[in-house]
Amino acid sequence: MEFEVKFLPEGKRVSVPAGSTVMFAALRAGVDLANICGGKGFCGKCLVEILEGRAPPPTEQEKKRVGDERIRKGYRLACQLIVEEDMVVQVPDQSRVGRQRLVIMGKEPAITLRPNVKKVYVEVLPPSLQDPKGDDVRIAQVLAGMGFDPVLIDYDTIKKMPKILREGDWKVTFTILNNHEIVNIQLGDRTKELYGVAVDIGTTKLAVFIVDLLDGGIIFADGIMNPQIRYGEDVISRIGYASQSDENLREIQKAIIDGINSLIDRGLEETGIRREDLYELVAVGNTAMHHLFLGLNVRSLGFSPYPPVLGNAYNVRARDLGIRINPAGNIHTLPNVAGFVGADAIADILASRIHEKERLTLLMDVGTNTEVVLGCKEGLWSCSTASGPAFEGAHIKCGMRAASGAIEKVKIGEDFEVEYNTIDGERARGICGSGIIDAVAEMLKRGVIDMSGKIVLQDHKRIRDGADGKEFVLVFKEDTASGKEDIVITQEDIREIQKAKAAMYAGYMTLMRKSGFRREDLSGIIIAGAFGNYIDPENARTIGMIPELPISKISFLGNTAGSGARMCLKSVEMRCEAGAIAKAVKYVELAAEPIFEEEYVNAMYMPNSKLEDFPEVVANVKAPRVVRRYVRR
Amino acid sequence: MEFEVKFLPEGKRVSVPAGSTVMFAALRAGVDLANICGGKGFCGKCLVEILEGRAPPPTEQEKKRVGDERIRKGYRLACQLIVEEDMVVQVPDQSRVGRQRLVIMGKEPAITLRPNVKKVYVEVLPPSLQDPKGDDVRIAQVLAGMGFDPVLIDYDTIKKMPKILREGDWKVTFTILNNHEIVNIQLGDRTKELYGVAVDIGTTKLAVFIVDLLDGGIIFADGIMNPQIRYGEDVISRIGYASQSDENLREIQKAIIDGINSLIDRGLEETGIRREDLYELVAVGNTAMHHLFLGLNVRSLGFSPYPPVLGNAYNVRARDLGIRINPAGNIHTLPNVAGFVGADAIADILASRIHEKERLTLLMDVGTNTEVVLGCKEGLWSCSTASGPAFEGAHIKCGMRAASGAIEKVKIGEDFEVEYNTIDGERARGICGSGIIDAVAEMLKRGVIDMSGKIVLQDHKRIRDGADGKEFVLVFKEDTASGKEDIVITQEDIREIQKAKAAMYAGYMTLMRKSGFRREDLSGIIIAGAFGNYIDPENARTIGMIPELPISKISFLGNTAGSGARMCLKSVEMRCEAGAIAKAVKYVELAAEPIFEEEYVNAMYMPNSKLEDFPEVVANVKAPRVVRRYVRR
Repeated sequence: MEFEVKFLPEGKRVSVPAGSTVMFAALRAGVDLANICGGKGFCGKCLVEILEGRAPPPTEQEKKRVGDERIRKGYRLACQLIVEEDMVVQVPDQSRVGRQRLVIMGKEPAITLRPNVKKVYVEVLPPSLQDPKGDDVRIAQVLAGMGFDPVLIDYDTIKKMPKILREGDWKVTFTILNNHEIVNIQLGDRTKELYGVAVDIGTTKLAVFIVDLLDGGIIFADGIMNPQIRYGEDVISRIGYASQSDENLREIQKAIIDGINSLIDRGLEETGIRREDLYELVAVGNTAMHHLFLGLNVRSLGFSPYPPVLGNAYNVRARDLGIRINPAGNIHTLPNVAGFVGADAIADILASRIHEKERLTLLMDVGTNTEVVLGCKEGLWSCSTASGPAFEGAHIKCGMRAASGAIEKVKIGEDFEVEYNTIDGERARGICGSGIIDAVAEMLKRGVIDMSGKIVLQDHKRIRDGADGKEFVLVFKEDTASGKEDIVITQEDIREIQKAKAAMYAGYMTLMRKSGFRREDLSGIIIAGAFGNYIDPENARTIGMIPELPISKISFLGNTAGSGARMCLKSVEMRCEAGAIAKAVKYVELAAEPIFEEEYVNAMYMPNSKLEDFPEVVANVKAPRVVRRYVRR
Repeated sequence: MEFEVKFLPEGKRVSVPAGSTVMFAALRAGVDLANICGGKGFCGKCLVEILEGRAPPPTEQEKKRVGDERIRKGYRLACQLIVEEDMVVQVPDQSRVGRQRLVIMGKEPAITLRPNVKKVYVEVLPPSLQDPKGDDVRIAQVLAGMGFDPVLIDYDTIKKMPKILREGDWKVTFTILNNHEIVNIQLGDRTKELYGVAVDIGTTKLAVFIVDLLDGGIIFADGIMNPQIRYGEDVISRIGYASQSDENLREIQKAIIDGINSLIDRGLEETGIRREDLYELVAVGNTAMHHLFLGLNVRSLGFSPYPPVLGNAYNVRARDLGIRINPAGNIHTLPNVAGFVGADAIADILASRIHEKERLTLLMDVGTNTEVVLGCKEGLWSCSTASGPAFEGAHIKCGMRAASGAIEKVKIGEDFEVEYNTIDGERARGICGSGIIDAVAEMLKRGVIDMSGKIVLQDHKRIRDGADGKEFVLVFKEDTASGKEDIVITQEDIREIQKAKAAMYAGYMTLMRKSGFRREDLSGIIIAGAFGNYIDPENARTIGMIPELPISKISFLGNTAGSGARMCLKSVEMRCEAGAIAKAVKYVELAAEPIFEEEYVNAMYMPNSKLEDFPEVVANVKAPRVVRRYVRR
């Protein structure tokens, strides 16, 4: 038996078998509905309002995430709501995904919850003339009987403790941090409210996740542009700004703290969680972002040998940093490997588990800086390459961020006819990172450019001379959103992509040489980073951004930095593992490696001047083979 | 051979043997000169200026405490300066004792230094391309090699660390708190500057000591009236004020914090120590003073069974409390036994060592509240008695504090003629605590009053009717400072003293019964408290304030609360011992003991209605024996 579900305001209708979820119906109907936790009822993002039709009783997850009051008003979670008859549901704006939201997510392996904070509900015998001992002694005895041995009580907590103990008739909930400090006392049983925050501070994007520390579910995830962008798009310019004065440093630190606080505020508003119940925040970022978040002097990151101030994990009170979770809460940052391989790389490794792999794996976290990690359980090698902002659409003539109207997929036919997709299917406004890689790869395949990247196609309506030399017209102006200008790929744009991909590939090759492994040992490639998810693996291989492996050996994990942050939030064991990884990773400073320069020059060709390393690619491209092998002087 | 030393501005001259110290000369000449550390050169308080005469080279202590610059100007320490020829020295005002200063000191047993903070000078290998690891990792490795394993770095310290490391050419001094946290980094070798603060918060008086944590010497000691006095003279009224609102609590807390800060400021100015080099502060006080210092809710101390908020020792950051030592420094408070036996009593026990004594000893810390502790190494029993402010001169018609012109010693002759001493030998302005005890005891001996305290002498020029009944004239107005009014002891004054001493003695008797020991087991009495030092032990025994033991068994230790605070500042082992004492002391709530009421009534007589307990006293007093034994209903 099937029933019809109608989604408003779109008006989309779909028939689904009885017993299906509304989420299933939305997926089938193509309705944009958030599904962050994969239908487990954790994230609470797929809120819908039932306008018509009977609903079964709410599940436990719905009671927890939606709340009795909203349930009475007809609000439910689409992933939990079973279709029992024809229904009409309204999808509120807040339940829409929006592309910006999606790209902050990343794959995360299942781990056992072992959070650094615990709650415990206790009923304490009140003092009497026969037993007038101190409140703290009384509580310590009760907690000791329950297996807890907190030796510290936070100052804010001890100040409010006597009042709450007595108002609560000596029935209260304690929050215990790190098994040794009481950081909160609350009236009655509040053990079900225990949350933490994971933060991924990207150079360009800031992502914040609120996690339920009782079940590990993500109940809020959102991202904004890193507000530090106004101090410079890249890491180097922000280091320069922050190094000028203590005031500048405080200013740039405040920008990121304010940004995180604003996302936390949004999360509290959407979820209805109380601020005091956010007890920990785990942050990752590259070393510069990590240091600017903590307000650390970054001058040393600006000069060789770029030592970080903090290599180990660090903990600081929320109140001391100005992060608006529980003021006694703990802010934890993951270790940094070196000045340009930071806590985010540790998080990448942790989430991708390459330190446990039997066989050699390459991990690239693609961003403004691309962290490259090569390794397996026998060892880990890392470096950082300045891939630049080209993949974010910057420094590209018609480049734009991955937003509505951006060309994200490109195919060029035999006669150089161009097919493309835009984000949200709108008229083309520009081209984003994945579209540029596609375009360059397709131009290579069709021989529009030669292997040195030079535009060699002539006498075609799509080829013409622009302000910066030759350019290839991807979309003629009459088909664009503005209708005023053609969307083109210029010779300069191709050079930008070449430089970016050459740096990444040369980084990989340098690590390969340092590790002592051989090319044939490589058994897998992991592309991480929000942007990575949209790259066409075959085209990335075609332009020589990554080594040639079968497509099935290339996987995309999304924002693994965020995943690693969440893992460390959820488990102290993961923090130990992160520490062990940081000690194990061997850092390779590319500036000190002549091999890097050599491989960089080789990799400026597409796919590479070492054609023998890309036999499949070479067999499939029409681009003229104008390559010259680097010869060491 | 003898030389003459002349002291200015007094102009006093004295001859002393060659090789004597100037301190010895000052003592012989009766010149008021501070001598806090007993001539060891630690405290630096006996600074004098040499105007004429040759001085031997400065000692190490003088170099440390006086400094090269002042030594060049002729400043030296009197206790170190040897007389080699005739000399003229000037005694600056700051080197004068003043009575207020002296009374904050107390005896302190010798202990092994084991402070909770250490300094270590290190020379670190700077980062290089081959070794670009984080500053924190680099430092941890060096410190580990020296036997330190700090796992935490204070947030303020990590923020300034990279700059100081580089400015100091990687030669720096770290301060390590509690063996696990770096709380300061300083340029070069600063290991010789490591100081702490001990604070005794009395209900009436506040005493602050600055201690050199490298040698244990007291280098500054000063006291002021407790600024909280404006919120009430006694503990109960301050508890009442602070319980009215959070604002009141903050206000009364601020008063004591400001008071402590002002004394610290004075200490820094006098000693030239840097504020950042004060790393710990250990505070003691009765439970209410302890709680108000920490800003804890004191409501529970106002109602039976008076449980404290904190029974255990507590640690809080200086910056969180607003104490102006190093902001990352640690504030440590000793444990409290109960609502009215606090950290000061623990400090008293620690300093008097009664927990180690073979035989039963009675300790009384005499103040507005008198803590009574009875015990030996077999056990400790404690209680608190509201002895009231009579001993401070309050609630006494002609009472005054122990200041210039106060009658401090009284003797009454066969014909009721009165001899007395005043503080500083000035004309009498009133009578202070020790003088009142003397006066009442002498009146008892001479039969001016009977054993019930009633004035029974008649038809004598010193006996007359006043506004509050009969009174005894101690000093006729023509001999007083004002010349306008007689100084008298009224019937009411005698009643105040009776109530105060009865409470103390009944407290002792109650503990004696609870402990199971017998009267003959008592082998010693220790009087602590600043005031205690000036009590005539025989007269205290005569009025029955303390049990009858030979005078040789009565000792005076002065401000042992301050001594105990200093001991815990100097040694973490003492903190452990304080914790063990707090656990061992059995608290006796007098309100719950009918025996207390019984003994209180008995003790209202002088010496007591149990005459058999005071055979020597009874044999020596002429007071009529009008006593009635309490009979339990």
